[in-house]
Amino acid sequence: MSKGKVAIIMGSQSDLKVMSEAANVLEELKLSYDLTIVSAHRTPERMFEFAKSAKSNGYHVIIAGAGGAAHLPGMVASLTTLPVIGVPVKSSNSIDGWDSVLSILQMPGGVPVATVALDGAKNAGILAAQIVANFDSEVDKALSEYKEQLKEKVMDSANTIEENGWKSKKVGF
Amino acid sequence: MSKGKVAIIMGSQSDLKVMSEAANVLEELKLSYDLTIVSAHRTPERMFEFAKSAKSNGYHVIIAGAGGAAHLPGMVASLTTLPVIGVPVKSSNSIDGWDSVLSILQMPGGVPVATVALDGAKNAGILAAQIVANFDSEVDKALSEYKEQLKEKVMDSANTIEENGWKSKKVGF
Amino acid sequence: MSKGKVAIIMGSQSDLKVMSEAANVLEELKLSYDLTIVSAHRTPERMFEFAKSAKSNGYHVIIAGAGGAAHLPGMVASLTTLPVIGVPVKSSNSIDGWDSVLSILQMPGGVPVATVALDGAKNAGILAAQIVANFDSEVDKALSEYKEQLKEKVMDSANTIEENGWKSKKVGF
Amino acid sequence: MSKGKVAIIMGSQSDLKVMSEAANVLEELKLSYDLTIVSAHRTPERMFEFAKSAKSNGYHVIIAGAGGAAHLPGMVASLTTLPVIGVPVKSSNSIDGWDSVLSILQMPGGVPVATVALDGAKNAGILAAQIVANFDSEVDKALSEYKEQLKEKVMDSANTIEENGWKSKKVGF
Amino acid sequence: MSKGKVAIIMGSQSDLKVMSEAANVLEELKLSYDLTIVSAHRTPERMFEFAKSAKSNGYHVIIAGAGGAAHLPGMVASLTTLPVIGVPVKSSNSIDGWDSVLSILQMPGGVPVATVALDGAKNAGILAAQIVANFDSEVDKALSEYKEQLKEKVMDSANTIEENGWKSKKVGF
Amino acid sequence: MSKGKVAIIMGSQSDLKVMSEAANVLEELKLSYDLTIVSAHRTPERMFEFAKSAKSNGYHVIIAGAGGAAHLPGMVASLTTLPVIGVPVKSSNSIDGWDSVLSILQMPGGVPVATVALDGAKNAGILAAQIVANFDSEVDKALSEYKEQLKEKVMDSANTIEENGWKSKKVGF
Amino acid sequence: MSKGKVAIIMGSQSDLKVMSEAANVLEELKLSYDLTIVSAHRTPERMFEFAKSAKSNGYHVIIAGAGGAAHLPGMVASLTTLPVIGVPVKSSNSIDGWDSVLSILQMPGGVPVATVALDGAKNAGILAAQIVANFDSEVDKALSEYKEQLKEKVMDSANTIEENGWKSKKVGF
Amino acid sequence: MSKGKVAIIMGSQSDLKVMSEAANVLEELKLSYDLTIVSAHRTPERMFEFAKSAKSNGYHVIIAGAGGAAHLPGMVASLTTLPVIGVPVKSSNSIDGWDSVLSILQMPGGVPVATVALDGAKNAGILAAQIVANFDSEVDKALSEYKEQLKEKVMDSANTIEENGWKSKKVGF
Repeated sequence: MSKGKVAIIMGSQSDLKVMSEAANVLEELKLSYDLTIVSAHRTPERMFEFAKSAKSNGYHVIIAGAGGAAHLPGMVASLTTLPVIGVPVKSSNSIDGWDSVLSILQMPGGVPVATVALDGAKNAGILAAQIVANFDSEVDKALSEYKEQLKEKVMDSANTIEENGWKSKKVGF
Repeated sequence: MSKGKVAIIMGSQSDLKVMSEAANVLEELKLSYDLTIVSAHRTPERMFEFAKSAKSNGYHVIIAGAGGAAHLPGMVASLTTLPVIGVPVKSSNSIDGWDSVLSILQMPGGVPVATVALDGAKNAGILAAQIVANFDSEVDKALSEYKEQLKEKVMDSANTIEENGWKSKKVGF
Repeated sequence: MSKGKVAIIMGSQSDLKVMSEAANVLEELKLSYDLTIVSAHRTPERMFEFAKSAKSNGYHVIIAGAGGAAHLPGMVASLTTLPVIGVPVKSSNSIDGWDSVLSILQMPGGVPVATVALDGAKNAGILAAQIVANFDSEVDKALSEYKEQLKEKVMDSANTIEENGWKSKKVGF
Repeated sequence: MSKGKVAIIMGSQSDLKVMSEAANVLEELKLSYDLTIVSAHRTPERMFEFAKSAKSNGYHVIIAGAGGAAHLPGMVASLTTLPVIGVPVKSSNSIDGWDSVLSILQMPGGVPVATVALDGAKNAGILAAQIVANFDSEVDKALSEYKEQLKEKVMDSANTIEENGWKSKKVGF
Repeated sequence: MSKGKVAIIMGSQSDLKVMSEAANVLEELKLSYDLTIVSAHRTPERMFEFAKSAKSNGYHVIIAGAGGAAHLPGMVASLTTLPVIGVPVKSSNSIDGWDSVLSILQMPGGVPVATVALDGAKNAGILAAQIVANFDSEVDKALSEYKEQLKEKVMDSANTIEENGWKSKKVGF
Repeated sequence: MSKGKVAIIMGSQSDLKVMSEAANVLEELKLSYDLTIVSAHRTPERMFEFAKSAKSNGYHVIIAGAGGAAHLPGMVASLTTLPVIGVPVKSSNSIDGWDSVLSILQMPGGVPVATVALDGAKNAGILAAQIVANFDSEVDKALSEYKEQLKEKVMDSANTIEENGWKSKKVGF
Repeated sequence: MSKGKVAIIMGSQSDLKVMSEAANVLEELKLSYDLTIVSAHRTPERMFEFAKSAKSNGYHVIIAGAGGAAHLPGMVASLTTLPVIGVPVKSSNSIDGWDSVLSILQMPGGVPVATVALDGAKNAGILAAQIVANFDSEVDKALSEYKEQLKEKVMDSANTIEENGWKSKKVGF
Repeated sequence: MSKGKVAIIMGSQSDLKVMSEAANVLEELKLSYDLTIVSAHRTPERMFEFAKSAKSNGYHVIIAGAGGAAHLPGMVASLTTLPVIGVPVKSSNSIDGWDSVLSILQMPGGVPVATVALDGAKNAGILAAQIVANFDSEVDKALSEYKEQLKEKVMDSANTIEENGWKSKKVGF
């Protein structure tokens, strides 16, 4: 079991399709995590309680995903000193994702949210692992292996192209 | 004294220059109001308390102004059934005001914020008066007079131009 | 029958798919309403007549939806002192909805429109109810129950996930 | 006196600094014009009256300038079959001019507004002249001369640079 | 046959789906027109020739549609004193249409293009008719009838809704 | 064989669908090229090596395509004095392509990237040919023929429309 | 001395005005840090060396600020498994800051950058402290005190306004 | 004298302040160049003539700068097979530079423009030199030295900071 524990929360079950990528990569990187729904706008008391007790509940990092006027990551950050990673989710009524990106990114001085790319839940998981890796050598090792694999996948496709030419069926785009 | 009472809150004292226009127009329209600072990100408990007790404290409308990743109007709206009017403030580090506009406007289904124009605090005050006018005939009358004055100011400048020509010193642009 | 009466108008029948959500939520919240088509650009006289007589016709709030260069909410607001709620509709030739949002939101000082999110007709209905609730205790009660239901739906999905894990078929994303 | 008559209207006296460029170029191109203030939002009846009688009052083209949620050009176009030229004005609270541009440009099918560049009042005047030139040979001739002058000014600066080098004091940038 | 003649040109045959709406409305409004392909970037000499001879070829208005970095309307306008109406076309590789809108709208002082909405070819046709109507009473009459029809279509859908309710199958959204 | 040799690289195999258009046009214009995958973020050492040795490996131009926060073109440009052509690719999680466009275009003073349109790989190939044509007369000739063909295709569709009318089945839009 | 050590790097000395806020808040929160200039585009080898050795040099977090097509944070992140915090700097030739924000935020899957607000260097420092606080109780304590001070400053201005009224000279906006 | 010759053209003398940076860097890199004014919109014939004869006049690269609806680079590219480098200039009435960027960048397939950053004339000059360096070893050598100097300037400021601390007066930000 990893020394670091991560909480993954999201504003609505419809965010799960995106946010599950954070959970998957945390499993791959050998971190413990809990995942649940916490809505800033529909369950504000639950959000308060969650955020105020996150530290004493043993979490080291919080990943929070939300769409539209996305207040969940920033509000949780206002209620804890744990690092909060915000995932802007491109929800159905979003104005091309700009609303979620800006509502999460543009936090005022004093209350940071570590924002990742639109729908970038996988990177939120990796970032959480990088934070934990500072005090958990097993996660640190898993991260190095993960980075190695990223490289190998690129090398594989590069080699296939270089050996067979890009028009080859083996490349198959 | 008006039957309706309005609360004007803002995230930071630096918003006062913009938000004071709401207070001024409420005075002109003969409404009672209180004005104070409530920060969603720096005083979340105060915000909770304010929003939860706003109705029992006798308010009929809440005007909330904030800049950047502006969570104050939406979070207050999540904690009360009073109508909340949001004023996007163009703060110093804002990305041209888009961040405050979108963080206030794009609220999810179930929790509306009545959003006005960027830095549109005056209109927030008038809108509050329009809401109160439904059950306060004095405010209703003040609103009609206000609308009449808007018209007269335009007519004055139109008349000056039509009588003197737009190049006249009396127009003086 | 509710004490407050709401008018729902829209620029074109093609807006009805979006705007019907306002009607549905008003029914749920026990408000009386009328719904019809009024086009600022194709029936300007009808719009004038509608707006000038809205108050004497017994309406307390007007919900106006329109797309593209959306002038209906603002023009109606210029002709009445009733609160006007504007719904930016993402019409087919819209530039990602920015045109309707900005044409409704950015009203000049003196003539407010209470703008909700892009295609946010449901929130327009709730906001209308919040305005009426100030003088109609039945609507006020319905709003409290509605807010409670929002919470319960979130709690239900949170509980399902927490009890079964997010990978469970019961969550089924 | 020109056969064509142009009306220049604007939403507020603060637009006069921009809109006077339309008047100036019309004088240069020998067209008759009237200039006044008509506000869609503060004097809607005046706007109606102006637009409905513009044709019988002898105008051939209307130039309408406005900022923010700019409804004047589109509403006037809805009330007349005269060609309406819209000038988006970058007003003080504008979101970088996008609001005025989109509120004027994105008119629905059936009601066109001939939109020019942000603050492009001079081009609105020239466009009005091009419309009138179809039935007024004097204006047509003035337009040809104007086009010739545009060319000559460029040639003058090109010649100065080519003869003296761009670093010359005669170029003086 | 109408006294006014309109040229409809476009940068590519792929623009025809959008631009044919201009042709259709011109037929409805009883104007003569020619339609062809002229590409600023692929047939610049043809464009020059077209624009330089447009006036002597009897055209009174030019409608030019193009997508992406859309230079056709502006370049034609630089080569004639006829009024040029620009239609920004949302082509396949366009960045949401912003490129065509801005490349057509933001012409420098001296060379106007009368820009209509994104894909707004129908309005380009109506605007051309409004220009011609200044010296062609038959077109003028057709325009008035067209405007009347716009109103009637709205009234029809309004009446259907008001008589049957918006949930009726007769409304059928 | 052409005197000039071009390298086409891209950040991921998923960019191949877009980037293959560069390869195709280079073949048409008779240039030699190599094509492979080089990821700035997943294979930074490979990118370094590629860029540092590109000149000694005989390349005269580098075409680099990437999406999202697209660092490949700019980083390669920082490591070589060869001209680098950047192709912004609209990847799946892109914010409408703005991210790739701006990350490639807005290079700081000292390190240029020759940026082409979003997904504009064909133009990247032509631009590479134009660069090589300065010292390779065969490519220069191929470019002239290519330009002639562009013109002929437009003329063909123009002729079909002019001879048959735009409603003809031969036009068939 | 804190157990955690932070590296602050920036692309150019002109970023120092913004980035010094990160240094200042790190001092306030009792963290060790080094600050220097590393340019991705002008000193790519230095950047490589810095990033590859950052971990063995004892850093736990890297804060990287850059403007325009800002590649520094992302490239450093590609070369280390340490958490990298990116600060988009609004440089002089920036397109309103959008270029730096998107080039830093929109990293591809596998290589996260923890992005903060435009010019949000102070928040970058606080976020670094939050990361370190996971294994450094002194920093953790300093963070709690910092959060308390944020609250107190708001309460002070709220009290001054509530006691004296917002028009008081003591408020002095 | 360099083997390669560059033409620098711009739409208006007001672009000279920006475009002179291209001239300056070309001198530094030892290239021959001519600089003059050519306006696509005000002197279209001159532009045609310039572009058609550019190759026979001995130019190898054309640098074209323009603002607003910037058609000069694209139109010149349509009339020559020489590589054309486009510089989007942020002119006074520009909508934050987006208009010039998009009108130059988003060229259709077949007619590329090598676009550099907003106001990025210096990079246009360097890019021209990189193109010429393919067949001019002296320019090639000058480019390598230039790249070396870029690095040294960064190293100087890095060293000053590392030796004296960023708060030192020697750093002086």
